[in-house]
Amino acid sequence: MDISIREQARKMKSKAPFMAAASIEERNKALKMIADALRNDSERIFRANNVDMGEAMNGSVPSAVLKRLKFDEGKLKASIDGIEQLIGLDDPIGRITLHRQLDEDLILTRLTCPIGVIGVIFEARPDAMIQIASLCIKSGNCAILKGGKETRQTNKEIFGIIHEAVVSAGLPEECLYQATSHSEIDELLDCYGDVDLIIPRGSNAFVRYIMDNTRIPVMGHADGICHIYVDKAADQDMAINIIKDAKIQYTAACNAVEILLIHREIAHEFLPKLYHSLDEAGVTLKGDFASRGIIPIEAVGEEGYIEYLSLTASVKVVDDVDAAIEHINRYGSHHTDSVITSDDAVAARFMQLVDSAGVYRNCSTRFSDGFRYGFGAEVGISTSKLHARGPVGLDGLMTYKYTLNGNGQIVGDYASGVKQFRFKDL
Amino acid sequence: MDISIREQARKMKSKAPFMAAASIEERNKALKMIADALRNDSERIFRANNVDMGEAMNGSVPSAVLKRLKFDEGKLKASIDGIEQLIGLDDPIGRITLHRQLDEDLILTRLTCPIGVIGVIFEARPDAMIQIASLCIKSGNCAILKGGKETRQTNKEIFGIIHEAVVSAGLPEECLYQATSHSEIDELLDCYGDVDLIIPRGSNAFVRYIMDNTRIPVMGHADGICHIYVDKAADQDMAINIIKDAKIQYTAACNAVEILLIHREIAHEFLPKLYHSLDEAGVTLKGDFASRGIIPIEAVGEEGYIEYLSLTASVKVVDDVDAAIEHINRYGSHHTDSVITSDDAVAARFMQLVDSAGVYRNCSTRFSDGFRYGFGAEVGISTSKLHARGPVGLDGLMTYKYTLNGNGQIVGDYASGVKQFRFKDL
Repeated sequence: MDISIREQARKMKSKAPFMAAASIEERNKALKMIADALRNDSERIFRANNVDMGEAMNGSVPSAVLKRLKFDEGKLKASIDGIEQLIGLDDPIGRITLHRQLDEDLILTRLTCPIGVIGVIFEARPDAMIQIASLCIKSGNCAILKGGKETRQTNKEIFGIIHEAVVSAGLPEECLYQATSHSEIDELLDCYGDVDLIIPRGSNAFVRYIMDNTRIPVMGHADGICHIYVDKAADQDMAINIIKDAKIQYTAACNAVEILLIHREIAHEFLPKLYHSLDEAGVTLKGDFASRGIIPIEAVGEEGYIEYLSLTASVKVVDDVDAAIEHINRYGSHHTDSVITSDDAVAARFMQLVDSAGVYRNCSTRFSDGFRYGFGAEVGISTSKLHARGPVGLDGLMTYKYTLNGNGQIVGDYASGVKQFRFKDL
Repeated sequence: MDISIREQARKMKSKAPFMAAASIEERNKALKMIADALRNDSERIFRANNVDMGEAMNGSVPSAVLKRLKFDEGKLKASIDGIEQLIGLDDPIGRITLHRQLDEDLILTRLTCPIGVIGVIFEARPDAMIQIASLCIKSGNCAILKGGKETRQTNKEIFGIIHEAVVSAGLPEECLYQATSHSEIDELLDCYGDVDLIIPRGSNAFVRYIMDNTRIPVMGHADGICHIYVDKAADQDMAINIIKDAKIQYTAACNAVEILLIHREIAHEFLPKLYHSLDEAGVTLKGDFASRGIIPIEAVGEEGYIEYLSLTASVKVVDDVDAAIEHINRYGSHHTDSVITSDDAVAARFMQLVDSAGVYRNCSTRFSDGFRYGFGAEVGISTSKLHARGPVGLDGLMTYKYTLNGNGQIVGDYASGVKQFRFKDL
């Protein structure tokens, strides 16, 4: 491409209000055309993916990454299912969230509308490109997309197919743009004023780099230090079953559990059962002084209670639910934390006082996900408390505007007392 | 005070969940006690304010600032009225914004909750301290408050009265803290992890300094370049009346109009009327080439179409509503813009395509304000599209959390197909 990211962003910015004005029929038609085109042109995508896979295998790419790179019939079907689910969701644009008479013939309305121009930088996963582009189209946003370099050929094909479908459906040509070189990331960060939001997906260090190098608001999708607290009133078999799922089912996920907090009164009974069960499943435990007096495990090192993202977890004995809450709020990452208990008062206290995006009772932390929440798709999980928190789907890509319809009203009349506000929600 | 801001912030952070758990009765009781105490101890406040005023008058403080510094019976009454209005508003905490069955006995609930610890840095206006502290209490947030140094004595008295009332009402002592020295601002910016949000009020340069020097999210309250577009189908007398109000009623306000865009077809008829009317009121107009061919005004200089915050405005002739929209989106500050027209199609197009927090028809831009929107009070007006946009009242001080209540569910069962999600909104 000959155009710079800066020029592209400026063009997008001027077209964004028109993208926002596209009807839900136009946006859904575009999504339908994307789904059809992906199905029809799947061979082209698979061929390109083979090239990427070949290059990756020649390099020193770990097998976990290779698994993400691979784009096959199964992932294509899942992607198309995702698009079809998205088509079925209600229009997120133009929802009235406040409708109020300020005075006679002076009507305030708050309406949801797209954020505008969003820059998304994501990891080397071809299905991520499809998912993010679809969410942006459904939500009426323009997007600059930058995927991982390991999926260059696959992304090029997928983007080409998506963009062609979108333009055929009548949406503005400028609504989607693919950045292809790494240097364009810094260019993108420099587009303050034209790009409204940056969504970086990747390592903590990468997200931090982005935050430190742009004035554009960043919706960071952080790693997760998730906890499970096993209360003295827990069903212990349920606790072990949930812990195994939360630790093992997908260890690299940000919603996998990392720290297990065990009530002191059940530690002697529960820890040996937990230890054997996890040991069998190949999970290594590290522990504090108290837990190491009960089961033969290594000490938690100087690194403290961290995110392992592997078949390792740490365990700590706590006095009660309040001690668990304090530990979670102090050392956790405010992502997702679960309490296992049959005691309603303990559960209520935990869910009230734990300051995390997700607070769960008697279920796995792994449920923290846009699909599992029924959002159709997600652009990531936010541990920020501003704007969107938890799994971010369509709602997280919206803002709102206030419209005020009058017939000549001036503020001076209300300041002087000639007129008075007559607030009434409509 | 002997404690550092960093230590204070850490203490607040650990108490914030308890502040968030305070009942609406407790929070309203605290507000009621504040209102009573302010009334009873008003003499103490006025005496302190006299000291501040004396110092300011000895210095070189402009009269507009002196007017803001002054705290008298009128401002006290307005502040107490504001608190009483706030008491009457519904509890913003614990509102259920999503309630969904994911599967049988697996219930997802999204609840509003306070953001946590907020740092507010505000200008030298004693009523700002009262308004901001009250909003934070009603919304269940902890707050570190830093007011302008010119109101030091007044703020000290007011804060003392507020804090005593809050503690007497049973809220955590740590829920409010007053920072008193300028150096504490940089300390506050350094509290990433303990302070959840910074709200700076002040000049553009000051807000930018804050944004560039902290990793804590900043809700910036920008200046405003507001426009009024006078369409060819405008009621011209209404247009002049609205423009006069929007320019003159309070020139230093961020929602005052700065730029007037006039449809070419009415320029010859309308501009002379506008010119005479504004001239009479002491307003200086600057203009583009076309407008200067019609009325005797200075050219808009190299500075372009800027925020004057004084009895000056600029005028530009445009071809139609689309040209007006383009100018506003390109050169405006996305704050509040108004169209004067009797043509419904023109109004609809303007309100759809102008990308601002407030888009108005046939009324003054000065309505953009928390009180006038019926929010009870505001911490400022946001031109950001993330989190809160427009006047920011209680809602802008809230986030949400997801709770998930299960009975042992694990993700593995859904991944393997043993179980299937059965989404149902409740």
